[in-house]
Amino acid sequence: MQGTMETVVSSANRTVVIRPNGPTILMGERINPSGKKDLAQALVNEDFDYVCKEARTQVAEGADILDINVGITGVDEPALMKAVVTHVMAAVDVPLCLDSSSSQTLAVALEVYQGRPLINSVKADEASLDTILPLVKRHNTAVIALPMDEKGIPADARSRLRLARKIIERAEALAIPRSHIVMDALAMSVGAEGDAGRITLKTIGLIKRHLGVNQTLGVSNVSFGVPNRGLLNTAFLSMALAAGVNCPMVDPAQVRRLAADLVLGHDPYAGRYLKDYRRGRTG
Amino acid sequence: MQGTMETVVSSANRTVVIRPNGPTILMGERINPSGKKDLAQALVNEDFDYVCKEARTQVAEGADILDINVGITGVDEPALMKAVVTHVMAAVDVPLCLDSSSSQTLAVALEVYQGRPLINSVKADEASLDTILPLVKRHNTAVIALPMDEKGIPADARSRLRLARKIIERAEALAIPRSHIVMDALAMSVGAEGDAGRITLKTIGLIKRHLGVNQTLGVSNVSFGVPNRGLLNTAFLSMALAAGVNCPMVDPAQVRRLAADLVLGHDPYAGRYLKDYRRGRTG
Repeated sequence: MQGTMETVVSSANRTVVIRPNGPTILMGERINPSGKKDLAQALVNEDFDYVCKEARTQVAEGADILDINVGITGVDEPALMKAVVTHVMAAVDVPLCLDSSSSQTLAVALEVYQGRPLINSVKADEASLDTILPLVKRHNTAVIALPMDEKGIPADARSRLRLARKIIERAEALAIPRSHIVMDALAMSVGAEGDAGRITLKTIGLIKRHLGVNQTLGVSNVSFGVPNRGLLNTAFLSMALAAGVNCPMVDPAQVRRLAADLVLGHDPYAGRYLKDYRRGRTG
Repeated sequence: MQGTMETVVSSANRTVVIRPNGPTILMGERINPSGKKDLAQALVNEDFDYVCKEARTQVAEGADILDINVGITGVDEPALMKAVVTHVMAAVDVPLCLDSSSSQTLAVALEVYQGRPLINSVKADEASLDTILPLVKRHNTAVIALPMDEKGIPADARSRLRLARKIIERAEALAIPRSHIVMDALAMSVGAEGDAGRITLKTIGLIKRHLGVNQTLGVSNVSFGVPNRGLLNTAFLSMALAAGVNCPMVDPAQVRRLAADLVLGHDPYAGRYLKDYRRGRTG
């Protein structure tokens, strides 16, 4: 199964392959105005230089894919998304992950996108399945799937697995291959619920064992509302990678993926780790 | 099962309980001359002030238990072990882990030890089982068990599980309760064998699922011979704790266990994490 479980995404000039036991692929999370005043202001001002600089910085820090979210109250989101995607495509050559809760915004972004993007995201409720999966099908994209529905995020791992399976079955019914789906087991804050981290890790393990798809995770959600977030994020990322996540959504500046890949056997002969070390970086 | 799977160790004045889903217990590894020239020289010189300072420092850094190993070629190991244990017991009040490949050295150390120590270690070969388990039984100690035998360390996780089970069965045949056994899934260098980390993590998971005993791990072995060892050790420790290790053998100066405990749900209401944070430390 693993041989065919490759999620292929691309920009105009570059292809990125996400695969089980392959190198960890980093999705850069920073182009998202949530909780970021300066970026939000830049988006409102249509200051695309600011946004493109953030894109270049994340790529320099190791991001393989960039998430693009421009969701701010009061803006014309489809128009802004179209402009940002166009500018970021010109600034960097990594594939993009088009991130919006609005299917109209996603549709507009897909019209200008060059290559095969990720769409972020489809959920297990009927409204989402009915609007997002046809977009995925029509544009032959990959898609991030969230195992939650109109009732919210299930508290237990088995229920999340059930919703994950539901999304995959609905996609396959539209002849969207399972390999185009990247599951997100949903990280939630341990500050709000002490078992949140453990339940997410268990969900990741179940998805890996029963569904075999590639997995992302919004790692930093685990530390929301808790001090010294970086410490928690770092520990949780290592655990999530060991459990089965292979394309986490992260701040690339805070991540040392090569150490994790080496200890997990995803870096044959320590080739990438040692190359990085010789450049004076490592991690 | 978890309610009774408590490993209780003690010094004259302090008791430490190792239990599944409890706080991570740190065993300080630094009193061991292997690869440490200054400590080796201090031991040869019977410079017990040096050794006691190292003991105090590790406790200040968070060690709950201290490993004591004085194995140097050419010294009278039983006499040196007896002296070091006596001095360290006077210097710090944490329980000790008596670490020697010589049963005679262990026997001498057990004579002077006050409380219930850990013995490090028993293996699955007949010679070890026949000499170490009777010591464990007679002195009512806890013991670290290594799933290896006269043929060495099995390359695969299932074989290590089989040897782990063999040790437990032999102990139980002597009426040594399973809760007195702390298993070590055996970390080996990813520099020598790329799959080493993954096999160790799989072994930890199998031991947790099938045997339920508490687990230690010599985490830093994973990075032997590879540059920037701390990075690898940190990532591997998080993964090992998530897989089931709860009393790792580590350099306490390099470990941030509280972050791992919080994300794993082993720190109710983030009590220990927040207390540490308010003291200006955290981790």
